[in-house]
Amino acid sequence: MTDIGYLNGQFAPLEEIKISPDDRGFLFGDGVYEVIRAYHGVPAFWGEHFARLVRSAREIQLAFSLEQTDFQRLLLSGLQRSGYQEGKIYIQVTRGVAPREHAFPSKGEPTVFLSFRKMVALPMEVSQGGVSVITCPDIRWDRCDIKSLNLLPNVLAKQKAREAKAFEAIFVREGWVSEGATSNIFAVKDGVIITPERNHFVLAGVTQQQIVTLARAKGMDVQFRPISISDLLQSEEVFLVGTTIEVLPVIQINGEPVRDGTPGPITTILQKQFGAYVSDLTLS
Amino acid sequence: MTDIGYLNGQFAPLEEIKISPDDRGFLFGDGVYEVIRAYHGVPAFWGEHFARLVRSAREIQLAFSLEQTDFQRLLLSGLQRSGYQEGKIYIQVTRGVAPREHAFPSKGEPTVFLSFRKMVALPMEVSQGGVSVITCPDIRWDRCDIKSLNLLPNVLAKQKAREAKAFEAIFVREGWVSEGATSNIFAVKDGVIITPERNHFVLAGVTQQQIVTLARAKGMDVQFRPISISDLLQSEEVFLVGTTIEVLPVIQINGEPVRDGTPGPITTILQKQFGAYVSDLTLS
Repeated sequence: MTDIGYLNGQFAPLEEIKISPDDRGFLFGDGVYEVIRAYHGVPAFWGEHFARLVRSAREIQLAFSLEQTDFQRLLLSGLQRSGYQEGKIYIQVTRGVAPREHAFPSKGEPTVFLSFRKMVALPMEVSQGGVSVITCPDIRWDRCDIKSLNLLPNVLAKQKAREAKAFEAIFVREGWVSEGATSNIFAVKDGVIITPERNHFVLAGVTQQQIVTLARAKGMDVQFRPISISDLLQSEEVFLVGTTIEVLPVIQINGEPVRDGTPGPITTILQKQFGAYVSDLTLS
Repeated sequence: MTDIGYLNGQFAPLEEIKISPDDRGFLFGDGVYEVIRAYHGVPAFWGEHFARLVRSAREIQLAFSLEQTDFQRLLLSGLQRSGYQEGKIYIQVTRGVAPREHAFPSKGEPTVFLSFRKMVALPMEVSQGGVSVITCPDIRWDRCDIKSLNLLPNVLAKQKAREAKAFEAIFVREGWVSEGATSNIFAVKDGVIITPERNHFVLAGVTQQQIVTLARAKGMDVQFRPISISDLLQSEEVFLVGTTIEVLPVIQINGEPVRDGTPGPITTILQKQFGAYVSDLTLS
């Protein structure tokens, strides 16, 4: 088993893949990406990830010609070459290679880069015991709904969390919670499951939507609505969701316990249900 | 004469330089950069560019070990190899290569990439005749004082300008002019030369500072102060400055003429003075 890369039509061992320093991904962060988890060889929620990739690309006027089924073939082929059943697939599409100039190049093809790595899940004591988070000002641009490569503020926030011995940094913009640096956030308040409404300041999470659907299917009350920072701090439960973390209880915010500092019952139920759901996934 | 690249200690023809797709510049835009113009073999305002590079790097907690004199040797060596007397030097420093994870890698060296290209100046009818600009909302993050690789909003704004047959897009944040997508801006109002005050929303321009210094040396009144969009639209003169454009008259904003639609006298004086100044530059 080995890490595999793909660049513009060619598969190769990941460490052999090289790109041009004139790639607009390298020079400007001029591109979009997705991270997809494969469970027992099945890329989970591929349709949803592809739809978001297409949307992100469209929002930055980046055209690429690969269709969903072409891409799916690449995903399955790469997984097979890697030998990983539990895989982490990364897709990055940039506006291609051209001498550095901000406006779009008049010709040239986008760069399509994929990597296939082994998925290393969080240790059980973390996923079941829960994590600490910090809050920090959301200083990102106004189009966080685009999954772009301009991730420096996320990098800095995540590093700040690590330095505070926390797992994640939660962005707060003018008193309103938007999302984590690498995750979406949910809270439970008066028995209602809430997650920030989707607008230009929040990425529409694939796992977030799955959790909403799963919870509603179980008859739970789930609402997309703004969460103020004080709402968050007074929530009965808080949890993070994301492609690689799945459902992750938050037991501490800025050093203060959520509830009694242990994962809440709704979080635990959804975590189990999501786990059961993905363990049954088949190729659609 | 040929385009030259440099990567982590090695010079090579630019097209032979290749980087890893796991470079954090490619994945996150996790790095900083400078563009430096060489006049008759002399990298202009090198001390100022280096100081800004160091500051940008420090603001994102990126440490690199090259000192100013080491870097200067690289600049001169690269220029010499390229054979260009009139050169455009690009420096990019990223947080290096590591498997994709947002927080900083625990080990590894930064990536130092340089390119040396021929400087192609604007056609005389553009630099002397002036250009049109458009205004657009400044949706960038809150740390535009850092010259980082997160340039997607600048790319989109510059493209929008091109589609409007304009040279540049001027960012406006809550009614206040910040800067161009690839330049700083000046206006002349009641005989006073003004340029936006330096804060987290504006890059401290090297050419901008040179123009301020030059103008003050000639006894002109120059002020760093906020410029509202209505101030801008009612200015007697407007001009852009930057490393590659030097001083560039703006004769139209959003389709409306500035003055009578011709370059103003103060702009023209400063443009000539700057040209004379750089033509006399020597290696310090």
